[in-house]
Formats: sequence, structure tokens, C-alpha cells
Amino acid sequence: MPHISDRLQRMPSSPIRKLVPYADAARKRGTHIYHLNIGQPDIETPAAWWDAIQTAQPKVLAYSHSAGNESLRQRIADYYRRLGHDLSVDEILTTVGASEALSFVFAACMNPGDEMIVPEPFYANYNGFSIASDVNVVPITTSIEDNFALPSIETFEKLITPKTKAILICNPSNPTGIVYPKEALLKLREIALKHDLYLIVDEVYREFIYDGDAHYSALSMEGAEQNVIVTDSVSKRFSACGARIGCVISRNKDVMAAIMKMAQARLSPPTLGQIGAEAVYSLPQSFYDEINQEYRKRRDFLKKRLNEIPGVHCPEINGAFYAFVRLPVANTEHFCQWMLESFSHDGATVMMAPGGGFYSTDGLGSDEVRIAYVLNTEDLAKALDCLEEGLKKYE
Amino acid sequence: MPHISDRLQRMPSSPIRKLVPYADAARKRGTHIYHLNIGQPDIETPAAWWDAIQTAQPKVLAYSHSAGNESLRQRIADYYRRLGHDLSVDEILTTVGASEALSFVFAACMNPGDEMIVPEPFYANYNGFSIASDVNVVPITTSIEDNFALPSIETFEKLITPKTKAILICNPSNPTGIVYPKEALLKLREIALKHDLYLIVDEVYREFIYDGDAHYSALSMEGAEQNVIVTDSVSKRFSACGARIGCVISRNKDVMAAIMKMAQARLSPPTLGQIGAEAVYSLPQSFYDEINQEYRKRRDFLKKRLNEIPGVHCPEINGAFYAFVRLPVANTEHFCQWMLESFSHDGATVMMAPGGGFYSTDGLGSDEVRIAYVLNTEDLAKALDCLEEGLKKYE
Repeated sequence: MPHISDRLQRMPSSPIRKLVPYADAARKRGTHIYHLNIGQPDIETPAAWWDAIQTAQPKVLAYSHSAGNESLRQRIADYYRRLGHDLSVDEILTTVGASEALSFVFAACMNPGDEMIVPEPFYANYNGFSIASDVNVVPITTSIEDNFALPSIETFEKLITPKTKAILICNPSNPTGIVYPKEALLKLREIALKHDLYLIVDEVYREFIYDGDAHYSALSMEGAEQNVIVTDSVSKRFSACGARIGCVISRNKDVMAAIMKMAQARLSPPTLGQIGAEAVYSLPQSFYDEINQEYRKRRDFLKKRLNEIPGVHCPEINGAFYAFVRLPVANTEHFCQWMLESFSHDGATVMMAPGGGFYSTDGLGSDEVRIAYVLNTEDLAKALDCLEEGLKKYE
Repeated sequence: MPHISDRLQRMPSSPIRKLVPYADAARKRGTHIYHLNIGQPDIETPAAWWDAIQTAQPKVLAYSHSAGNESLRQRIADYYRRLGHDLSVDEILTTVGASEALSFVFAACMNPGDEMIVPEPFYANYNGFSIASDVNVVPITTSIEDNFALPSIETFEKLITPKTKAILICNPSNPTGIVYPKEALLKLREIALKHDLYLIVDEVYREFIYDGDAHYSALSMEGAEQNVIVTDSVSKRFSACGARIGCVISRNKDVMAAIMKMAQARLSPPTLGQIGAEAVYSLPQSFYDEINQEYRKRRDFLKKRLNEIPGVHCPEINGAFYAFVRLPVANTEHFCQWMLESFSHDGATVMMAPGGGFYSTDGLGSDEVRIAYVLNTEDLAKALDCLEEGLKKYE
């Protein structure tokens, strides 16, 4: 029998996957599950999305341009112009979600065996994309103790080898809910320029900021235009995760030309998603304000409520819609399974993502979980009641 | 400045890409271009597709299951059952077009440096997908002289090394328009079993067969269940190229589990495309018959008309919607460019894909072009008038 490739044998399953059968079984027993385990918002996709698709109905659902329809890229450029970034349509390439954007970037920028420094805990799927290109993630550990702040330049530099080709961060961060301040970004710029590294920044949660300064995008960095690559997506911004429309943005022409070759090989991103995306990229500022207000309310509620539960520590969270939280248990993987397998409160339980899967370093995160606050505050309240009761009953 | 990866430096651009600026310029001059260069059919996407999307309009356009909605996979399984193949939903994984299906298969089944034997001329994007996984395509040359028939088992065996992990064919074939007979497939089965190779068969043109026996699918091969992987797509079958919905099918559980890990990393295939696909997979046989009849008419017309043009040789073509044709010119790359740059007839010209880009072996295909008969016979007639006139005028 033929073999599976080494890379796929090495590729970890998603941190939540092991829990899925327990969730299925709980559902079969009639237990309601509050899903705080995945970044799937409950916010309605804007009506403009559906109107655009109904109006378009092309006779033939044809391939689009491999970089995405120019009319969509023009709308995305307009959106970035409102944020203060001047981009041409050639500096924007539409992808199948930010997932494909990251896969393309890793394959285009790194050789097998090359290394990419990523602050951990990090979005677990970065593992999948990097392993598919045989790129090695080198974790730089951040800690709940100091609110997952980026380590010093010196700590970064200790990890840099001749194989290091990139630094990757997510800002605002999935899974920590941290927003990196401008000074942290400028430190990364300095390292990238000094060591000739790509600086890849996943900015899909750009609008999801609840305190303090405005988001500082890597696209604002002067003098690092050849190093900076930004990935983006409509999934969270417009609650359109199923559209599978993202983009990669860079002013580095060689990078964009290399990515374009891969884009042409796979022909086209989804045409229907592009039609919807074009419509919602024209929504006014009030749309963003409303969403922001809703998530801010959820964040305020979540943080307060979590820190009321004995032994639970929720750090400062001011962006995205995640909290990376310490629980008073030794093994959150077991606890999360137990919550699905052996617990219910008022006919319900809560599903969370165990923290360990977000670290590359073995053993870290075993008393942490990621909580996605993608439910309204009423449901969040019930979910956190479940968590509190569960922690009381769990041995 | 950071570097582009070796693989992307090695990745060829699509065979048509060089022609695009010439086509753009021709269009600007007001010349109409008959596009025979790409497999984008002019057939209307079925009304059932749009009805389903209009009816569904979910409040939240959410991620689907990473393997695709189970309801869609059930419809695909029903479709296969009608073709005589008994498949469970777990043996079907929905992908972003057949493109992603092939990318997943190559990454899951082969290590960097492994080899995959592919009859040339072959679909040029196989290069892109294999290079992204650092897999090497080893071409086995077929020739217009004997209608692109598969070489003997001995010829295949001469190419097999310890690095060989797979044979890949497209049946019916893009770009040759050939349908491989059952005996040819059984030869491949024998080789795959003897040498422990994957047999990857791209069957997206399964319904597009115009003479002779029914399509013999690799899914019918008894005893090769662990070796056979089939890729498929709704793009051509339902004229829904922009949907980006394909699938990978295998009874090899290890392969499906490995591919599932990659599917989970990229979260979900497009949700809207899945809704449309589910509807059209329920269309009756008359739908397929009608499409088949239309393409048969085009094929008959194209072959006859091409062979009337002095010096042009169109071989037997009985499947897909391509012809791989010899022209009486030394360098079709130059001729195709000249047709766009310096020629028009009744205000129009024709765009074709130069043959060389479909071969891995340098120098082959320089007097050949691929013609996609994706236009109705009236437009095809005008396009071929352009070709005939062009050949007369070309030095």
C-alpha cells in the first residue's frame, strides 16, 4: 500500500478535532452546546451581500480573473484608502480566504526547511499551512503573565538563523485577543530590515479593537515595503466566513508575481463570494461602528464574568473576538472533553478550544483555553454559567 | 530584499499568460477575440443553481464542514451510485475546485523530490500544483501520430525509480480530447499494483464522451482501492467554473484522513457553491444528454473543419472539449501571438493555447495548439475562418 507523505504524518489535527465526537454525542443526548470553540460569528451577513448576488445572477458562473475581479480589487483598494493606505489593484490579490493567502505566501517566500518565527500561542492552522510547504515554525513564547506582549528584539534575535526567512504575527491576535501597539510593530520592522526577513501580518481582525489607539497596520511602515506582506479576509469583518474570500497585499512586486503564478494555476477564487464582497466593501462607517459596539459589549461582559469565577484568569483583551484564559485545572484538554462528555447545566454545556494546540512548545497551554466570544451576551452569560458550574463539579 | 522561494522561481507561468497583453491590445483596437484558449464553456449554468441560492439565503454565511456539507456529499454519492460506484460520504471530500483536490492529493501522497509519471501533453497546471509540493513530474511522451495513446507497460516501467510514487492521468483528457479505453486503464492498474503507486485520475470530463464505449472510471477497478484517487469538479459538468467546487474521492482511508487534515486547516470550501452544487447534482439524465449532444455537434464540426484547412491535422478526438492540433507552422507560440498582434479577419481573430506549454520535454509541441471548443458552432465557424485566413497570411 502506498504511503502518506512525511509532512502529512507530521501535520497535527486541529486542536478541536478530538472534541468533535464528544460534542456529537452530547448533542445526541439532547444537551445544548454553546460554541465558544470556533471563530464563527453569529452576526448576520449584511443584506447588501444577498442583494448583490440576486441582482448579478450571471448566465454563466464563469471563472474570474485569477487575482480576483478587478472591480472587487478596486473596492478593496478604496477601503484601504479610507484607512490611509494607497494601494494599486496590482498590489491586491484575491484568495480563497486568508487561508489560501497564507498558503501562497509561505510557498512563495520560503524553501523547504526554512524557518518562520511566530509568537506562541498562535492560530493553530498556521501549522497546517507551513507544513504543507515544508516550512518550519519557530515559536517565540509569550505569556499570559504579561498579557502576551511581544518579547524583546534580543529574544527574537536569539532565534534567528541563516534559515530564518520571516516573522509572522496576527494583529489583532487570534487566539490571544491582544492588539500589538505601534511600538511593537516598529520593533518587528527593525528586525525584518536588519535581517532581511519577510514580515507577514495577518490583519483579518483589524476593525475589532475596543480600547486605546487605532490599529497600526504593517502597511503603514515606511521603508519596509519589500518586506511587508499583509493577509486579509471578508470572513470576520462582514460575517461571511463561508464566502471564502480573502486577499494578500504587498508592495513587493516579486512576491506578488510569484503568488500570481500560483493563483493562475488554481484558476480563480469563488465568483459568487466576490460578487457579495464587492457589495459589502462599499458599506458606510456606521456598519463597522455597529459591529464594533456589539463586540465591545461582549468583550466587557466576558472579561468581567470570567474574572468573577474563582481561579479563572482572563488577561487584558482588547481586540479580535478571542480571550486566552487560564482555568484552575491542570489539563484543559481533559476538562474540555469532560464538559462535553459528563457535564450539563440546565440542559446545556460549553465547548472551548484547549490551549495546548495553540503552542508549538510541548507542555505549554495545558491550563489555558481559547474562548471565542461569537455569541450574544445573553447566550454568553449562559455559557459562562455552565463554565462556572463545570469548574465546581470537575475533580 | 528577501528572496522568492526556489519552487516559485521554477514554476512556469501558464501557457497562455504571455499572450494576455497581446489579447488586451487587440481588444483595445476593437478586434473581437474568439476565445478557444481556455476551458470556460458558454453553456448556461442551470436555473436550479440560482433557485437554490435564492431559496437558501442563510442569515449567516457560515463555514461549512471542512469536508463539505454532508447533504452535498450525499448528493455526490447518489450521482456516483447512478454511475455504478458505491461510495460513502466519508470517501468524498469537497474541495475548492479540482485544483485544490489535486494540490491536496500531491501534498498528502508525496514527499519533496518524489516523482509522478504523467503522460504529456498534460494539463499545464499540474506543473503548478506539483511544484508547490516540490513533487517532480516525470513526463511519458505520447504523440499525435498515434492519437496520444498511452505507451506500453514497458515504457512506463523504464521511468519508474524508487522515487516514483504515482501515475497521474486525465480521462477524458485535457488537453488532447482523448478518452482512454478500459484496457489502457487496466494496464495502469497493473503497474500501480506491481510498483505500489498511487493512480490519480482526473475525471472532471467524465460525461463528455462522443463515440464508442462508456467512460471507464478508475473507481471501477477492483483490487486497486488503496491506490486509486479520483478528482472531480462541478465546473465543466454544470458549467459552473466560478463556483470552485470539486472533490477528491478515494477508498484509501489513510489518504482521506491526511487530506482531511489539510481541509480542516483551510476551514471550509465555499458555502454558496455548495448550495448550488447540491441542487444541480439532482438534475435528471436529460440534462447530461442535452449537453453531450451540443458538444458532440461542436466536436463533429470542429474536426471536419480543421482537417479541411491545408496543413492542419486534427487527430481523433472523442472526449472532453479540447483538440490538440498540428498546424503548418514551426512555432505556434509565435503564430498565436501574431494572430493577436498583427492579424484580423472581418474584425475578429482567434486566441489559442500554444502546444509547448503542455509538454514537460523541451521542444515538443512547437507545431501544436490546444483548441477548446467552448463556443457554439456559429462562433466556432467564424473562429476557424480566422484560423484559416491567418495561416494563409502568416509567413
